[in-house]
Amino acid sequence: MSWNTLQQNRAARLQRARAALGNELDGKSLPAARIADLLHAALECGDRVCLEGNNQKQADFLGHALANLDPARINNLHMLQSVLALPEHLDVFERGVASRLDFSFSGPQAVRVARLASAGKLNIGAIHTYLELFSRYFIDLPPRVCLIAAEAADRHGNLYTGPNTEDTPAIVEATAFKQGIVIVQVNRIVDTVPRVDVPGDWVDFVVQSPRPYYIEPLFTRDPAQISEIQVLMAMMAIKGIYAEYGVQRLNHGIGFDTAAIELLLPTYAESLGLRGKIGKHWALNPHPALIPAIEAGFVQSVHSFGSELGMEDYIHARPDVFAIGPDGSMRSNRAMCQAAGHYACDMFIGSTLQIDLQGNSSTATAGRISGFGGASNMGADARGRRHASPAWLKAGEQARAGRNTIPRGQKLVVQMVETFREHMQPAFVERLDAWELMEQAKMAIPPVMIYGDDVSHILTEEGIANLLMCRTDEEREQAIRGVAGYTPVGLARDKRMVENLRDRGIIQRAEDLGIDKRMATRDLLAARNMKDLVRASGGLYQPPKRFRNW
Amino acid sequence: MSWNTLQQNRAARLQRARAALGNELDGKSLPAARIADLLHAALECGDRVCLEGNNQKQADFLGHALANLDPARINNLHMLQSVLALPEHLDVFERGVASRLDFSFSGPQAVRVARLASAGKLNIGAIHTYLELFSRYFIDLPPRVCLIAAEAADRHGNLYTGPNTEDTPAIVEATAFKQGIVIVQVNRIVDTVPRVDVPGDWVDFVVQSPRPYYIEPLFTRDPAQISEIQVLMAMMAIKGIYAEYGVQRLNHGIGFDTAAIELLLPTYAESLGLRGKIGKHWALNPHPALIPAIEAGFVQSVHSFGSELGMEDYIHARPDVFAIGPDGSMRSNRAMCQAAGHYACDMFIGSTLQIDLQGNSSTATAGRISGFGGASNMGADARGRRHASPAWLKAGEQARAGRNTIPRGQKLVVQMVETFREHMQPAFVERLDAWELMEQAKMAIPPVMIYGDDVSHILTEEGIANLLMCRTDEEREQAIRGVAGYTPVGLARDKRMVENLRDRGIIQRAEDLGIDKRMATRDLLAARNMKDLVRASGGLYQPPKRFRNW
Repeated sequence: MSWNTLQQNRAARLQRARAALGNELDGKSLPAARIADLLHAALECGDRVCLEGNNQKQADFLGHALANLDPARINNLHMLQSVLALPEHLDVFERGVASRLDFSFSGPQAVRVARLASAGKLNIGAIHTYLELFSRYFIDLPPRVCLIAAEAADRHGNLYTGPNTEDTPAIVEATAFKQGIVIVQVNRIVDTVPRVDVPGDWVDFVVQSPRPYYIEPLFTRDPAQISEIQVLMAMMAIKGIYAEYGVQRLNHGIGFDTAAIELLLPTYAESLGLRGKIGKHWALNPHPALIPAIEAGFVQSVHSFGSELGMEDYIHARPDVFAIGPDGSMRSNRAMCQAAGHYACDMFIGSTLQIDLQGNSSTATAGRISGFGGASNMGADARGRRHASPAWLKAGEQARAGRNTIPRGQKLVVQMVETFREHMQPAFVERLDAWELMEQAKMAIPPVMIYGDDVSHILTEEGIANLLMCRTDEEREQAIRGVAGYTPVGLARDKRMVENLRDRGIIQRAEDLGIDKRMATRDLLAARNMKDLVRASGGLYQPPKRFRNW
Repeated sequence: MSWNTLQQNRAARLQRARAALGNELDGKSLPAARIADLLHAALECGDRVCLEGNNQKQADFLGHALANLDPARINNLHMLQSVLALPEHLDVFERGVASRLDFSFSGPQAVRVARLASAGKLNIGAIHTYLELFSRYFIDLPPRVCLIAAEAADRHGNLYTGPNTEDTPAIVEATAFKQGIVIVQVNRIVDTVPRVDVPGDWVDFVVQSPRPYYIEPLFTRDPAQISEIQVLMAMMAIKGIYAEYGVQRLNHGIGFDTAAIELLLPTYAESLGLRGKIGKHWALNPHPALIPAIEAGFVQSVHSFGSELGMEDYIHARPDVFAIGPDGSMRSNRAMCQAAGHYACDMFIGSTLQIDLQGNSSTATAGRISGFGGASNMGADARGRRHASPAWLKAGEQARAGRNTIPRGQKLVVQMVETFREHMQPAFVERLDAWELMEQAKMAIPPVMIYGDDVSHILTEEGIANLLMCRTDEEREQAIRGVAGYTPVGLARDKRMVENLRDRGIIQRAEDLGIDKRMATRDLLAARNMKDLVRASGGLYQPPKRFRNW
């Protein structure tokens, strides 16, 4: 029996690659023009290939090269990918280079994923959360080849990622130590990298891309677009949840709802005397909307999954807050930050598209296979967690009061939605579109983003429903209906039961929280537009062009 | 407002260290004799200090030096530590150098931890699981100084860990990128390290220890000590759970119960035709007891938290199975393997000391504060998980059949115990000792290792109780009593209800599974003693002395 087939296979690939590139291979480095030759030589049909498409930086040069390979030579690849963001990510399937996919998120390409899947050109293994996908790279889905992106490399292959470290270390480790091939595109090749993010002896081939890798400013929200409804909801969140539980360690989902909260910390939360009492430690990308709260001394630390375009100089100038390397730039780490979001945070708060009567929420809609990203991981009770904190204990007490179970804490998982979303679509539904998508896409179970039994609170403009304190399925249903406003679900509420829930504090309206709705104006935002954010940063934040109208 | 206090403080520490060491500092390297001077200079009172004491390798030279510092100069340190294993780990508290502790496991020192805590010399922050503790290093508990261990370093501080990578990368990353000080003891300083596990620019000081770091062969079990009761239980596990659910990806807890299962794979499981159908992918340390199953072709891959003493040559010769670096030795990674154990495995199976009537289990006993290690993390339903597998779907269906909840999968979490443990202590109790320990140690909640609502099966010599299929608290209680044998808890069963549960397949006896108890002899073990394991490995496995009687 042979026990080193992987090593032998690796040696054969390296041999083929060297033969194909000849003396154009300079150590580990090859000319960009020869990338197709390298890939044709190093890949084999049916390979599991991890392409670094994540939700921020993209190994776009390598992705483009992959999509243009000769499908007669390389086909049936099994793509492993955090995020399908670019057209090339689907072209590999369209062209028959790849046929199978395991992934986490495909927001921008969700329609095309669904179309290719139903056309039989793309066979979906499973949809994962990020940390779960990385975990499988170490167990049953080790990449045979990975195609990744870094800022710079030296001649030994040592990689410098700068602030967008993101998924890279996890992918490379999983690949390199199972005798896979690691191919990296870099923006530049240098004599000495500013710091080493991935050791050179884990890297096989380096190619300098003709253009810097593409990066998406995904977490930037223009405060000018925040509505006064969102200001009101943010006030309720701060007073009714952050202050109520004393939430010190948290993660915010992406979107305007949570951006509004970030912008109310130095104004509304400050006026309630909450500085130092809430929001000290964050598992969060460097949201520009957090700048005013950082400047006001609300925020002690931020650890990030990735970086955010335009925030580089600001981060560099705030090394007490962010994780900064010896070179002065940030190091992010999606795997460790997802672990931290799950295990070291007391609260996740984020938005969704649909919520059903059990509190299950989903961003799935018919005809779009979009996946979950990291929300499902952050928005799940961490049942392996054992350390206590006041917020965690209080949530656990509320969930278990009067029940014959052993005491434990619980994570706060808050879903924050307006009762109607765009185009007057109700956010509350009797039945999630996820059921329909399950049938369309032949999934084993409906793609739920956050399960109802993990949700602690639902917050709308009508109030807060505390699901922890509900004792029966019926109470839970009425608590949800009781904040569902004028949606059909909300209108079908049992009014007496809802008033009873309100008497018991399970439903709280703004007035129950002592919030004067007249205060809920945009004046309360610490920054009202992008320019205000730049100003708050002392000119250090440099928004990408598309966010500038000056 | 100053935003770089951490950087300034780091510079001051480095400055003091350089002044203290003078020209005895050669680059990053200092003589072992000067370690106290370095620590006195680089540390400050009240520092959070992460000492690499994990459950295998120990930064014992640095730990010893720390314990012998002058408490008049350095005191009130806040120790962060995976495992308290050595006397020095408690001496720091005894001598007043440290006063506060956040940790995961203290098995060998549990009595002394309890004694020092009640004497007021050791203030426990919290007890964590490993990944949870690492997560906090990135959020609210970044180490100011870390003291770690590696196999070798070069003059730039590049570290080589060999197979015992374990906790090191997570600790160093969390420390270095918050401007902390990274001090490493190495067994040797070399010109070129065989591979880079931690980049040199993350490392500040290197000291060659007079002796190689201590390492504990924690996962080695002598097959000679496996009883025929354990063989019977292992047969029930394989036929009643592994085969029943088709478990392909799993983690085994530590102990003789699971060692027995490992040793029955090439014999009993093979006879049932299960090769290729169960146990292909493992999140597991390189258990010597797994050697026969690997040799028989049962095991496709093993990713490890740490290594195991004596397994080095065997691992090196089986690179298809283990994660092997360019140097030919393994790379382990406790953080990623804990993530994988949580998210990429369908089953955790392990032992415990006590189980109550709700299925809550604990290894806590009065007067011993021992912590959890990783079992709580692996033995918890991964509620953030979204990818499906047959085993996960089947467990989820059983748990939700007839309930009005949205379908989802569930992790198999199996607690495997003999009804009586050593000294005829019953494993089943009305009330866990954890309650008493909570009061003694003034904990907020009782220290439960695995919560009953995460447990899917309890397996004893009397049979298997499937808790997933129980529909009421009473059924669950009787299912547990029904496998609790002659313990008081077992004797108090409602016999009719237990027979009813058996009719419904919720309780299964050996005979219900078609297992002939007469087959349950030690002859069924693929190795019956350490010599057999060595033989199975083709002489590659070299057991530590204490396990050899030849």
